[in-house]
Amino acid sequence: MLNSNIQLNEQGNLKHFLAIEGLKRPHLTNILDTAESFANVSEKAVKNVPILRGKTIINLFFEASTRTRTTFELAAKRLSADVLNLNISTSATSKGESLMDMLHNLEAMHCDMFVVRHNQSGAAHFIAQHVSPHISVINAGDGCHEHPTQAMLDMFTIRRHKQQFGHLKVAIVGDILHSRVARSQIHALTTLGANEVRVVAPKTLIPKGINSFGVHVYHDMKKALKDVDVIIMLRLQNERMQGALLPSKSEYYQLYGLTEEKLACAKPDAIVMHPGPINRGVEIASSIADGPQSVILEQVSNGIAVRMAVMTLTLNRAPKI
Amino acid sequence: MLNSNIQLNEQGNLKHFLAIEGLKRPHLTNILDTAESFANVSEKAVKNVPILRGKTIINLFFEASTRTRTTFELAAKRLSADVLNLNISTSATSKGESLMDMLHNLEAMHCDMFVVRHNQSGAAHFIAQHVSPHISVINAGDGCHEHPTQAMLDMFTIRRHKQQFGHLKVAIVGDILHSRVARSQIHALTTLGANEVRVVAPKTLIPKGINSFGVHVYHDMKKALKDVDVIIMLRLQNERMQGALLPSKSEYYQLYGLTEEKLACAKPDAIVMHPGPINRGVEIASSIADGPQSVILEQVSNGIAVRMAVMTLTLNRAPKI
Amino acid sequence: MLNSNIQLNEQGNLKHFLAIEGLKRPHLTNILDTAESFANVSEKAVKNVPILRGKTIINLFFEASTRTRTTFELAAKRLSADVLNLNISTSATSKGESLMDMLHNLEAMHCDMFVVRHNQSGAAHFIAQHVSPHISVINAGDGCHEHPTQAMLDMFTIRRHKQQFGHLKVAIVGDILHSRVARSQIHALTTLGANEVRVVAPKTLIPKGINSFGVHVYHDMKKALKDVDVIIMLRLQNERMQGALLPSKSEYYQLYGLTEEKLACAKPDAIVMHPGPINRGVEIASSIADGPQSVILEQVSNGIAVRMAVMTLTLNRAPKI
Repeated sequence: MLNSNIQLNEQGNLKHFLAIEGLKRPHLTNILDTAESFANVSEKAVKNVPILRGKTIINLFFEASTRTRTTFELAAKRLSADVLNLNISTSATSKGESLMDMLHNLEAMHCDMFVVRHNQSGAAHFIAQHVSPHISVINAGDGCHEHPTQAMLDMFTIRRHKQQFGHLKVAIVGDILHSRVARSQIHALTTLGANEVRVVAPKTLIPKGINSFGVHVYHDMKKALKDVDVIIMLRLQNERMQGALLPSKSEYYQLYGLTEEKLACAKPDAIVMHPGPINRGVEIASSIADGPQSVILEQVSNGIAVRMAVMTLTLNRAPKI
Repeated sequence: MLNSNIQLNEQGNLKHFLAIEGLKRPHLTNILDTAESFANVSEKAVKNVPILRGKTIINLFFEASTRTRTTFELAAKRLSADVLNLNISTSATSKGESLMDMLHNLEAMHCDMFVVRHNQSGAAHFIAQHVSPHISVINAGDGCHEHPTQAMLDMFTIRRHKQQFGHLKVAIVGDILHSRVARSQIHALTTLGANEVRVVAPKTLIPKGINSFGVHVYHDMKKALKDVDVIIMLRLQNERMQGALLPSKSEYYQLYGLTEEKLACAKPDAIVMHPGPINRGVEIASSIADGPQSVILEQVSNGIAVRMAVMTLTLNRAPKI
Repeated sequence: MLNSNIQLNEQGNLKHFLAIEGLKRPHLTNILDTAESFANVSEKAVKNVPILRGKTIINLFFEASTRTRTTFELAAKRLSADVLNLNISTSATSKGESLMDMLHNLEAMHCDMFVVRHNQSGAAHFIAQHVSPHISVINAGDGCHEHPTQAMLDMFTIRRHKQQFGHLKVAIVGDILHSRVARSQIHALTTLGANEVRVVAPKTLIPKGINSFGVHVYHDMKKALKDVDVIIMLRLQNERMQGALLPSKSEYYQLYGLTEEKLACAKPDAIVMHPGPINRGVEIASSIADGPQSVILEQVSNGIAVRMAVMTLTLNRAPKI
């Protein structure tokens, strides 16, 4: 079991940001409130603030992701930090130099933060356990475990539209089994007190023991969407699926793709979310992705503000709010 | 037909910079005058000016080009903008995510400018047509269509040496058929009022309908260079040629390579230009490339100033001149 | 023969930093003293100083090295310079464009410094001989020739622990034959007046004529380590070795790996150094690499300060010390 207390310093404040699991509601609310103060920065003519000037942030990506890396890089640059991108093939680290030696070398260069993406669950925790005390680690996705900044940008987007979590019914649709995003979202929604969290997927894509997370499992999408306030579509992670867990794409779309007909089951003011990149006509109809209930692009914008918040909070440089 | 009015905002000022075609002489002169104010910046001990501080510029390169990307990156950094380099293989965009979705995602991150290179003619126009109103698009080369910043740095170099365009005879030599650079140069020279523009190439490398561009076609290089003030050599774009349009390299050099003997046909004070990288002994004799009439390296220096000018003008941040 | 006077300007100050060979003690001492003033900068909350603001530094890496490139990039960024990373495959330069043309193009973009790594000995010298007078060149490793910034960070680390060089016995252990690091270290130690420099390796890994360098050659490691103050382990450069110069890894470790038993031959306060990345259990026992006498990670930290010193000195911007 991963011990998430490692995320907090002695005063109980965020030191690393590795997982939503183990954090309390005030931690999450603090991130959302801090992100609120950065949301406007990105829209200004001069988008940079000098909060992390002179700090060195290293994007340590063991798994390629231009998209996620770009948002962290932009967030860091808008905070005036220096950013270094290191793309490390897992094979390379196993060759000449151990992961630990590589980390200690980067530490010795007086870095302040590692943003880590890795295809192994627990990688960011492992790194946080072994770095010097002055370094903060942010999990940018580890295996099938968590992707906490993605979940927090989703929470931020929900709060901007729905204000409160207490009355919300939220459905998460798709490959729950392999989705680190879903895992983080479920923890965030239950921690923030959502009224009901539903997960919707074929039986082959529901992890065992999911009930212990406090969610309701559905296999029929129309029933699952009945009266929900928020619909979160997941991405079909083709590259992460092993074997034939899935029917054909068209069959998947028919059963679990978000169509106008299924969307009609949700509340009229329900918002539709997707972490991107979207597979149009597989997970979601184009008309919905581009339609009035979609907040997909807002999620992207909010991603920068939320990452700025997490970076400043873990480095103890967040503006007073 | 591409509608180039998309390049201008309601006040008739430059909003995007996609093509020389469709722009009027004052637009081009304004770029040249603005570049003049930046030409000195690059030579100073401190080469940076804070004009685009807090702006985010994305180099969106669908076609690899270290050279062109470097000049845009340097121009952006000298203006104090944040720069992100995204090298996108065309195959990748067709896979998971559509080009439009990728663009909208980048927009949502509050970028201010896309510098686009693409192997498809019209790609930059397409992107400019579909981005949010606050974003400017600069064409860094699209297929066989245009490469307008290259043409403007050439014009800047010519003006610095010859002051006026009205009396100039200019010869453009080489693969006119495939050259986006030539296309942009021809439009720029005719718009700026050059006395005569000559194109010189074997018949197989002259596009049909070239006469409508107001140029004179030559196949004999000595005749073409007679009394010209400016000689613009093009690069042999081996990678862009399909089939056997060309004789051997040595035969090409004999017929269309710039040798001392051919250069002697031009005016004694004629300048020699080349967009680089040069193929010595194929397009041009080394003695000329390195000789007193060559302004090839000045073109490179001027490229930074011209790109700084285009970036500030399209973002409406150009210094008063 | 390479003429190292090219490194100095008319006043005898450092203009390029290509090799330790040919420099005098005051040059090296000046680098160490300047680095001292930067050593604290890296430990501050705001690690950046504006000394090279507006300067453009190009990392020109013809040989891949994330590690070395990262330290130069960090050093440049902490000095507030703009940095451009160009990774150039040697084959690419031979194709379209000559090395000289590429250099002249980069110069024309008004760069101030090239940091060069190349697999050919003498490459940095060649470049320094051919660049414009305003450009400084730093050798970040050329073939089997020199790696002078690595040697200077080692000297800096030694001086911090031992204060003076005059009384020191230093052993350099490993593949002396192929090591540009060893070559630079030997020159630095003799120039700084070390009491005795010993090299330790199997006969196949000792270059001919090594005696002219003023070092003592050992093949028995225990004898070599007797009473030394400093042990410098080299990296086994597998990729640089041709043919079967080496016994098996385990045999090598038995003979030339640094074990507790062998370390016991040195002075009790001897320090243990390694340029990294270390091959645990091949060149050095893990217990020693992580033990109290190891200064391996200090070397990494000092590498940033020393590179900041060399960058500011060659650009004539070093703070008064």
